[in-house]
Amino acid sequence: RRAFSLSACVRHERLHEVLPPHESFARRHIGPSSEDTQEMLRVCGVETMEELISKTVPESIRSTQELILDPPLSELELVDRISDLASKNEVHRSYIGLGYYDCITPAVIKRNVMENPGWITPYTPYQAELAQGRLECLMNYQTMVCDLSAMDVANASLLDEATAAAEAMALCFRQFKDNEHNVFYVDRHVHPHSLAVIQTRANHLGVKTVVDDFHNFDFSTGTVCGVLVQYPNTDGQINDFTEMIEKAHENKVLVAMATDLLTLTLLKPPGDLGADIALGSSQRLGVPMGFGGPHAGFFAVKKPLLKSMPGRIVGRTWDHQSMPTHRLCLQTREQQIRKDKATSNICTAQALLANMSALYTIYHGPEGLRDIAYRIHRSTLVLAEALRRQGHIIHLGPFFDTIKVTCNSHVADRLKVLRRAREKKINLRISDEDDLGVSLDETVTASDVSDLMWIFGCTRETQDSIVASAPEDITEGSFLDSEYQRTSQYLSHPVFNKYHSETALLRYMKQLENLDLSLAHSMIPLGSCTMKLNATSELLPISMPEFASLHPFAPEEQSVGYQEMLEELDRDLCEITGYDKFSFQPNSGAQGEFAGLCAIMAYHRDRDEQHRKPMGPTAASAQMAGLNVVYIPTDKKTGMVSIEDFKIKVEETRKDLAAVMVTYPSTYGVFEETIVDLCDMVHHYGGQVYVDGANLNAQVGLCRPGDYGGDVSHLNLHKTFCIPHGGGGPGMGPIGVKAHLAQYLPSHPITSTSSDPAKSLGTVSAAAWGSASILPISWAYIKLMGPQGLRSASEVAILNANYMAARLKDHYKILFRGAHGFNAHEFILDTRDFKTSANVDSIDITKRLQDYSLHAPTVSWPVSNTLMLEPTESEDREMMDNYCDALISIREEIREIEDGKYSKDNNVIKGAPHTMKVVTADDWDRPYSRTKAAFPASWLLPVNKVWPGSARQEEIHGDRNVVATLYEALSTVKKK
Amino acid sequence: RRAFSLSACVRHERLHEVLPPHESFARRHIGPSSEDTQEMLRVCGVETMEELISKTVPESIRSTQELILDPPLSELELVDRISDLASKNEVHRSYIGLGYYDCITPAVIKRNVMENPGWITPYTPYQAELAQGRLECLMNYQTMVCDLSAMDVANASLLDEATAAAEAMALCFRQFKDNEHNVFYVDRHVHPHSLAVIQTRANHLGVKTVVDDFHNFDFSTGTVCGVLVQYPNTDGQINDFTEMIEKAHENKVLVAMATDLLTLTLLKPPGDLGADIALGSSQRLGVPMGFGGPHAGFFAVKKPLLKSMPGRIVGRTWDHQSMPTHRLCLQTREQQIRKDKATSNICTAQALLANMSALYTIYHGPEGLRDIAYRIHRSTLVLAEALRRQGHIIHLGPFFDTIKVTCNSHVADRLKVLRRAREKKINLRISDEDDLGVSLDETVTASDVSDLMWIFGCTRETQDSIVASAPEDITEGSFLDSEYQRTSQYLSHPVFNKYHSETALLRYMKQLENLDLSLAHSMIPLGSCTMKLNATSELLPISMPEFASLHPFAPEEQSVGYQEMLEELDRDLCEITGYDKFSFQPNSGAQGEFAGLCAIMAYHRDRDEQHRKPMGPTAASAQMAGLNVVYIPTDKKTGMVSIEDFKIKVEETRKDLAAVMVTYPSTYGVFEETIVDLCDMVHHYGGQVYVDGANLNAQVGLCRPGDYGGDVSHLNLHKTFCIPHGGGGPGMGPIGVKAHLAQYLPSHPITSTSSDPAKSLGTVSAAAWGSASILPISWAYIKLMGPQGLRSASEVAILNANYMAARLKDHYKILFRGAHGFNAHEFILDTRDFKTSANVDSIDITKRLQDYSLHAPTVSWPVSNTLMLEPTESEDREMMDNYCDALISIREEIREIEDGKYSKDNNVIKGAPHTMKVVTADDWDRPYSRTKAAFPASWLLPVNKVWPGSARQEEIHGDRNVVATLYEALSTVKKK
Ligand SMILES: Cc1ncc(COP(=O)(O)O)c(C=O)c1O
Ligand SMILES: Cc1ncc(COP(=O)(O)O)c(C=O)c1O
Ligand SMILES: O=C([O-])O
Repeated sequence: RRAFSLSACVRHERLHEVLPPHESFARRHIGPSSEDTQEMLRVCGVETMEELISKTVPESIRSTQELILDPPLSELELVDRISDLASKNEVHRSYIGLGYYDCITPAVIKRNVMENPGWITPYTPYQAELAQGRLECLMNYQTMVCDLSAMDVANASLLDEATAAAEAMALCFRQFKDNEHNVFYVDRHVHPHSLAVIQTRANHLGVKTVVDDFHNFDFSTGTVCGVLVQYPNTDGQINDFTEMIEKAHENKVLVAMATDLLTLTLLKPPGDLGADIALGSSQRLGVPMGFGGPHAGFFAVKKPLLKSMPGRIVGRTWDHQSMPTHRLCLQTREQQIRKDKATSNICTAQALLANMSALYTIYHGPEGLRDIAYRIHRSTLVLAEALRRQGHIIHLGPFFDTIKVTCNSHVADRLKVLRRAREKKINLRISDEDDLGVSLDETVTASDVSDLMWIFGCTRETQDSIVASAPEDITEGSFLDSEYQRTSQYLSHPVFNKYHSETALLRYMKQLENLDLSLAHSMIPLGSCTMKLNATSELLPISMPEFASLHPFAPEEQSVGYQEMLEELDRDLCEITGYDKFSFQPNSGAQGEFAGLCAIMAYHRDRDEQHRKPMGPTAASAQMAGLNVVYIPTDKKTGMVSIEDFKIKVEETRKDLAAVMVTYPSTYGVFEETIVDLCDMVHHYGGQVYVDGANLNAQVGLCRPGDYGGDVSHLNLHKTFCIPHGGGGPGMGPIGVKAHLAQYLPSHPITSTSSDPAKSLGTVSAAAWGSASILPISWAYIKLMGPQGLRSASEVAILNANYMAARLKDHYKILFRGAHGFNAHEFILDTRDFKTSANVDSIDITKRLQDYSLHAPTVSWPVSNTLMLEPTESEDREMMDNYCDALISIREEIREIEDGKYSKDNNVIKGAPHTMKVVTADDWDRPYSRTKAAFPASWLLPVNKVWPGSARQEEIHGDRNVVATLYEALSTVKKK
Repeated sequence: RRAFSLSACVRHERLHEVLPPHESFARRHIGPSSEDTQEMLRVCGVETMEELISKTVPESIRSTQELILDPPLSELELVDRISDLASKNEVHRSYIGLGYYDCITPAVIKRNVMENPGWITPYTPYQAELAQGRLECLMNYQTMVCDLSAMDVANASLLDEATAAAEAMALCFRQFKDNEHNVFYVDRHVHPHSLAVIQTRANHLGVKTVVDDFHNFDFSTGTVCGVLVQYPNTDGQINDFTEMIEKAHENKVLVAMATDLLTLTLLKPPGDLGADIALGSSQRLGVPMGFGGPHAGFFAVKKPLLKSMPGRIVGRTWDHQSMPTHRLCLQTREQQIRKDKATSNICTAQALLANMSALYTIYHGPEGLRDIAYRIHRSTLVLAEALRRQGHIIHLGPFFDTIKVTCNSHVADRLKVLRRAREKKINLRISDEDDLGVSLDETVTASDVSDLMWIFGCTRETQDSIVASAPEDITEGSFLDSEYQRTSQYLSHPVFNKYHSETALLRYMKQLENLDLSLAHSMIPLGSCTMKLNATSELLPISMPEFASLHPFAPEEQSVGYQEMLEELDRDLCEITGYDKFSFQPNSGAQGEFAGLCAIMAYHRDRDEQHRKPMGPTAASAQMAGLNVVYIPTDKKTGMVSIEDFKIKVEETRKDLAAVMVTYPSTYGVFEETIVDLCDMVHHYGGQVYVDGANLNAQVGLCRPGDYGGDVSHLNLHKTFCIPHGGGGPGMGPIGVKAHLAQYLPSHPITSTSSDPAKSLGTVSAAAWGSASILPISWAYIKLMGPQGLRSASEVAILNANYMAARLKDHYKILFRGAHGFNAHEFILDTRDFKTSANVDSIDITKRLQDYSLHAPTVSWPVSNTLMLEPTESEDREMMDNYCDALISIREEIREIEDGKYSKDNNVIKGAPHTMKVVTADDWDRPYSRTKAAFPASWLLPVNKVWPGSARQEEIHGDRNVVATLYEALSTVKKK
């Protein structure tokens, strides 16, 4: 109704003055009421918010003026703005392919998963007992990937196909544990964006990529670590790789195949061909193209590569009640533990999108998927045949869904075909050569095929001859009934064969949802993860076809709405951070770190200072960027970097110093007073400062990294800027840089960006703007909050943390506080003493918190055996009070052990979490009561009880015996 | 992406022939797989579906050909069709008022309630223990209505404001228990559609409505039962009714006030003025206008009228564990029990919409609502002042949001104003007189006000003078600071004061949702309620602004999409039923019954046979239609109407016979073979046949009421045609009639319909097409299923019922089967013997089913102490098997009592349902185990356990001590 109201609004703005304003969204985003805020300030021992902030954020870096951003929109006005932007995107039918296909997201999945806070608001399943629903679903995903690719084990998703390809390269290189095997072959018919990402990564790792026709590869040189081919290739052709694979294996070279899961329902899969690694995108299994993302990259390997596989793996193990249970296994391979020796820097992946693809597969089942694939293939055959009969040249087959056409100019030349395509609002793949690509997808209808025929100038007669043909006359180019046709079974597990009615699927999804604790239940105070409100209004754009249905490589003039949104978001984030330019290519925080460090390296290289290397906390990304890592110790007592020590380190490495990475406010939860000095010092010695933006939630409107010395930061938009975490992804990690680094920002081989391709650090994601379709969420958050709202959110985030710390400080040690005794937006509870006093670890406390229906804080990070809490501004006082009461109550339970009332091995904490099965069992032989076990707080009632989905898990057993597909799970269950 | 593909599709339809088709939606709608179907037929003792149907549906009425409907659309194609229809509706800004206002549905409520199967798919909360979430929320609604209107007790919603007004009239008449007090006064400034509905009802009841200015009413005649005024009135004016109310009360005349809840945040409420009844619509509290509905009508009374109040009342009582619990109280007033003596025929009401309004109120709280109201009022004052300064005449105040303007033709005459309005896409209220109405609402912005000024020709100078004015200069017409201003408190209960952040509201809504069992959990086999899949794709249109945001009285050319959809739905329903014309005015089944009977009466009257009266089962509606009811007994053994007995009854009443009402297949779950004879006989004696369409789910595609003798039917679109039940509404009960009755169908005082106003039965709902915005759901269902799909659904509905009956028949007596031993789509389990053998009632079995996490069948209807099961076609075999296993297991539990293993008063059935609190308690003193209590089936696990929200309820206590607002609840809790 409001498309027309905006212009009038501009004309008569002054009327606002005689009318009271609409209420502000900030009131809805921020948890505590104004009365509670006053009371909480009092508890913190300050009079006013201003006093609290002045005692928290160093004077030297405090911003002196309000951010210059648009005044806040109401939620209703936001809908207008979004609709306006949406209308500037034009959705054409896409036959571009290149790894992105239109598809049908079943409405029941879209509404009940993609649009459901129960599914989209949890974090990565660190608390496995409260995440059994999505862990089970990720297990379904892994099984589906293994089934279709015929591999042994798959991870729970990577960021996209191109980064999966780069991970394959890195895995092959790593596998040899030497520097001799530093050549990686890439077939020339791999997607260009995959190649670009591989090359960017390879350069930093010191790996040489050789691009050629796969027939030409020589594996006998003793320098080759691996090879990547695309199957079917980027032009749609299906090649016979048998011989190549044999030769590679003779030389111990690993073979990675980029492939397409839907095709593999009909095509002989990589596993059956002997590949070591299969990878690709599961986007077309029910996930919208979204102008590039988010969707799940998949990655599967043969068993021997299991421990080297990047990313998260869901495994099944046993709990202490001998019940099967799911968890993230082999976490010891990950960056927070192995730092620069980690298998990858992946934290946020694409859990939600992997789960959507898993559910799509479950909904369709093996026959359903095969029918879809068959239909696409038949349509392609029919189209190819018509074009052939009309005189066009169809390039070599066999093919599945993609054909390459050289136009017969007597019928319709390339330009004419393209003109007609525009007329019909159709996008084809335009390659540099004189041909056109057409990739069909699940949505194709007879009229679509007919439109394509028309575009290529097919006459009525040709069409009639096609219609008159028998199916057996239209098979040219098909791989069916050849040695390429798949013979092995897949998706035979019951989960893929029983939820085919909408009712059945709905109930299965609801059952999984109800196993998990999300922000729809209670707070998730994971320090450094910023689990704040993901407001519904912010999420509306991702459901709109104008944002969801764009192909990332659609012609630029079709994405004007996106461009406008990106420009505004760039401008707003620059204002918020003090940087000069943002790149939206990195699609996770860790990816942003990598990209940021690459930008710094590109800068040094450009100045012939490529010897410089960085120091800092985020080791895995730095290692990926080919850097040596030097750790800077902090003072054990204050948690601060000693500026003297720092000076010594910097001077030691002065010649080689590339960058210093700092997290600010620090991961210890304090604003260090010395940040400006530290940055100055780095700059003085020719280094660059990388400020990890993960903690921006304490800074927006209060101080700016670009002001106090940062040269680069990534921002986790899935933290500070309200993109929901999806239970472990998606996320977005754009990087902001100062002007001198702008020219080095990521570029893209297909999409033109503002970066200079010659100077650019290269390409880090498959799509130019990463997971573009979730960017409107962050854009909307900024528009809704306005400058005061954003500042107020930071202030309340700081207040909430300090309020909780104040309530807890008489019961737990608060590790590290700022100069004036206050914390930033998070703080650490030191639980180390309980180990000796009561045999209680921080991890025991997290399990016990589950009995209170509460999600644990971050455990043992950044300090081992501690808990880091970040309430965020969205939590209200009552919620925080309940949480504090629970922690205080657990402290009392620890005291009961200390006092000898309960034994150190058998008590309510060691017995936690208590499942419904345990508490409702006929027998009860624990030294404490059922009520103490399951309802330990007066505010905890059946109506708000969230039962842990499993008891304490057999972690070591689970890591020693990785069970990562349902089939293994079945046989393991039987064995036990 | 597909707006353009349809036309191409028509051009090249034949290509379909060489391409395999997209999968059909019917596969998703229907539960059992084709393999299961075969196996189930075998269990039923037949070979094929055709055999089953031929043994179930009498040969004499079987349709011989497939329905002539469009071929089925895929879900993707449906989206195209819907978008196409949507684009033909034009949403203008509405200032029409008349009881419908644009408003802002908070996105968090829209997405998590209105679009959430957890909230929208349950039925009326008959199983209170599994419905504590929505019952609590309806209690919030009742409290909100009482608070704002300052009345003592409110019901849980009626169908709309106009029917609420008619119910007020009926209550006043009923209250006198004589026929002398048969005059009902209506002020001339009541909404015209409310008046029309009152008059239609009053005519049938024998009540005379007198319409006049309220000043002229004479209450001393001894004939007046009640009076209705509108406050503020339909023109927006606020009148002083003090004196009138005093006079009415002096004469024991009841005073009903139609009012507006939002206005009452500022205006002295009816309760404070002494009104006996307050009623109206709660639409503007967060519910879209939806071209007329659905939204909740509210109805509140002073305490003495409690037991006479129509509709459902939620009350709080205690459970056997001394915990407070909610339930529907005073059900003894209702039609299924009191039949023609019931307080109303309301079954389906507007639970979902009442809950949305309650949540809207909770989100905003008292200050928030007041701010919204104040903002609307200020905008109205500013607009009025501008128009006044410009020389227009603003009619008498005081007013709240609505002004009546007589245009100064020197500035802009009426026509010019209307032309400008059209130009700005703005709708004003156009009355018959020479003036215009403007009603502002929550969405109004400064630019909207400015547009209105422009429309009325306000000059720049006028606007500037307004902007320059101080607020205290713009108060003319305001009731604030006068005796009209509200002084009493409202919404002080904590529930209205703690969920003001989005996070807090989201969690509260999720908590309530998780208390309730819905179709997202398991089957709800309520006989005669047809709880089938409400597919997501069918629900998409209700979220689209083009359907949701239309004012019901918007100019006809703005609702072309709706008109087209209505025409198609009319045509399709005629084809399905064999009728010739449908009216979509009745907004529930019961309303449809009333309307259908009125149509018959109008027909008789038109033929001068108004003495004729009907006979049949649905007594309350018949009574409302002013008819005498004669019951026709059925044979106790066969459940069939004896055609001989029937003949006798018909001959006895032949002269007066108006209509026979039959349900077909009968509510006993069988297709009676004699239906054609029965209908013939009625027609022979000059009567009409009313076929209750509630059981159409067994007939679509198999037989048609219009073919076998029906003259009229209502269809419960919320049963057979997939409108979700909303936890107790909304619904739609359109009526289909044979051609000879078409001219008598409902008309409307504002909207022109195809009926002849002179012949029409009158008006039964506030809006011409009832709850129009949910009609696209049924339309979509028909389009998705196509003719074969619809027939197949009926067949599987019959199969599913017979499969369950076959599985249960060795354990329970099946009461009534058809001629060949088969049932229709539902069947009755006879549980009457258990009363003596084990002291077990059917109600005990329903409570015990809750322990199996299952929703009970329909209890004691139509036969006392039995259970009626209707699985519907959407349930799959596994679900039905679990359900049967549970019932068989309960039969074994009954046997344990019969065998003396457990006492008749203390056993697992009498102890049911077992709550989480009971089963997890430290103490356990029951004669059976906890496991037997809570996990009695092998398939019942913690992951699918739905805990009953309360133990057995104190029903008698609850009816004796009605506690229907939160304030009473608070004080009662304290007392206990
Ligand atoms: C301090 C810090 N930096 C970087 C990251 C990586 O972000 P992402 O998970 O988006 O890859 C995290 C993740 O939680 C973090 O806590
Ligand atoms: C047989 C029968 N007729 C009519 C109705 C009334 O329908 P509604 O609830 O829509 O008013 C019902 C309701 O369940 C019913 O079962
Ligand atoms: O991954 C972490 O958030 O530490």
